[in-house]
Amino acid sequence: MSLPLNDRGLLLGDGLFETLLAVDGAPRDWAAHMARLELGCAALDLPAPDAAAAQAVALAALVSAGLEAGRAALRITWTAGSGGRGLDRPEPCAPVLFATASPAPAPAGPLRLITAATRRNAGSIASRHKTLSYLDNVLARREASLAGADEAVMLNSDGQVACAAAGNLFWVADGRLMTPALDCGILAGVTRAKVLAWARQAGVPVSEVMMGPSALDEAEAVFVTNSLAGARAAQCLDGRPLREWSLRAKLSLALD
Amino acid sequence: MSLPLNDRGLLLGDGLFETLLAVDGAPRDWAAHMARLELGCAALDLPAPDAAAAQAVALAALVSAGLEAGRAALRITWTAGSGGRGLDRPEPCAPVLFATASPAPAPAGPLRLITAATRRNAGSIASRHKTLSYLDNVLARREASLAGADEAVMLNSDGQVACAAAGNLFWVADGRLMTPALDCGILAGVTRAKVLAWARQAGVPVSEVMMGPSALDEAEAVFVTNSLAGARAAQCLDGRPLREWSLRAKLSLALD
Repeated sequence: MSLPLNDRGLLLGDGLFETLLAVDGAPRDWAAHMARLELGCAALDLPAPDAAAAQAVALAALVSAGLEAGRAALRITWTAGSGGRGLDRPEPCAPVLFATASPAPAPAGPLRLITAATRRNAGSIASRHKTLSYLDNVLARREASLAGADEAVMLNSDGQVACAAAGNLFWVADGRLMTPALDCGILAGVTRAKVLAWARQAGVPVSEVMMGPSALDEAEAVFVTNSLAGARAAQCLDGRPLREWSLRAKLSLALD
Repeated sequence: MSLPLNDRGLLLGDGLFETLLAVDGAPRDWAAHMARLELGCAALDLPAPDAAAAQAVALAALVSAGLEAGRAALRITWTAGSGGRGLDRPEPCAPVLFATASPAPAPAGPLRLITAATRRNAGSIASRHKTLSYLDNVLARREASLAGADEAVMLNSDGQVACAAAGNLFWVADGRLMTPALDCGILAGVTRAKVLAWARQAGVPVSEVMMGPSALDEAEAVFVTNSLAGARAAQCLDGRPLREWSLRAKLSLALD
């Protein structure tokens, strides 16, 4: 399969995606990812994909990549489809669904983080969704790579701590678990929700906050969550060493 | 031609484009558009396309669409190419060039404008360039359409007047021509530059400004510029009627 040159996902970043972990051919948290994709469709005023079709396409991608065994990164893409020169979508629009799969080795050691200059746009509803217009995240990650780090911390356009380039951000300060509130203009991460549920159930005090970057100066531990890596610890932020959070191993077990 | 499913332009909005007017097979302002594309490549850390190859691809697109005569919208797209699962580009990256052409009828009457809630991200260098991550502009335009208007005025994430969804913005207040400064995080429009050059040569006082939306409350006339439509007048903004600027017909002649 390939895509025509007038696809709006390609030309304008008009569409959505999901990335999830598949283990031995079974996608993890499938329902949660599909629910999030549906919310994204509602926000972007796109029809949602048929759930059975999405599952069939996902499983076919795993088979086609020879990844029925072991860990695979499964990506579902839903573009706004072809047509409509310029910004206006054709009526009706006919979105296109496809999936790709790649090997997803277990993540290596802890992350070196830097704070990126590239900010996340809190002034667009798109910042709440996993859209095909992902260039700001690419640029933030590139800043990290060029600085010899692994991942970027992004502030939003209001100067609040928002997220990592590819994941949600958590930190621990005074024994309290902190993470940016969704109102910071961030993705409602599937793993983020699982961490919050685990913390509440385990009696770990947790806050969803809207705070500037000085909040991270007080952080003893920082970790990044996403569907592929779970909860991955950071070893340093902008060169400042960080500790491992005493409860992270327990959290990782709970996420697994 | 079609594009593989692992193209980074498609998956992540990682790439750039140019839209220009071709009249009777001749692209207008070709050198200026190519120079802007090169600046975008430098900002995004992509190699720039070969100028001769871009011209060949553009002319072939006009022929293939049967648009060697009359007005055509010519779009040159330069994606970051295939590969690199996740955000990191492969090294070296191998960008992909293609062009598409569509009929571009002369623009109809004056525009009805609304101010969109979707804001432009001033916190990313990408806001200065015409990137494939164009969803915020799509969403702003969609707001306009749903409100029964033709085009959206976008503020940036700092609340300053920035641009139209598909063009630069000018207004006239107290006989002075105003337009947002590039530091507002806007595209350095090719037509915008021509308007500024014309105004200076014609002795029209002109200012590049960083101002909030109340600046537009004082505007007597507003117009939107882009390569396809030249300088297109607005008849109203958020329901408030606007006048035609006495010099706009003269400006349009100069742009033609």
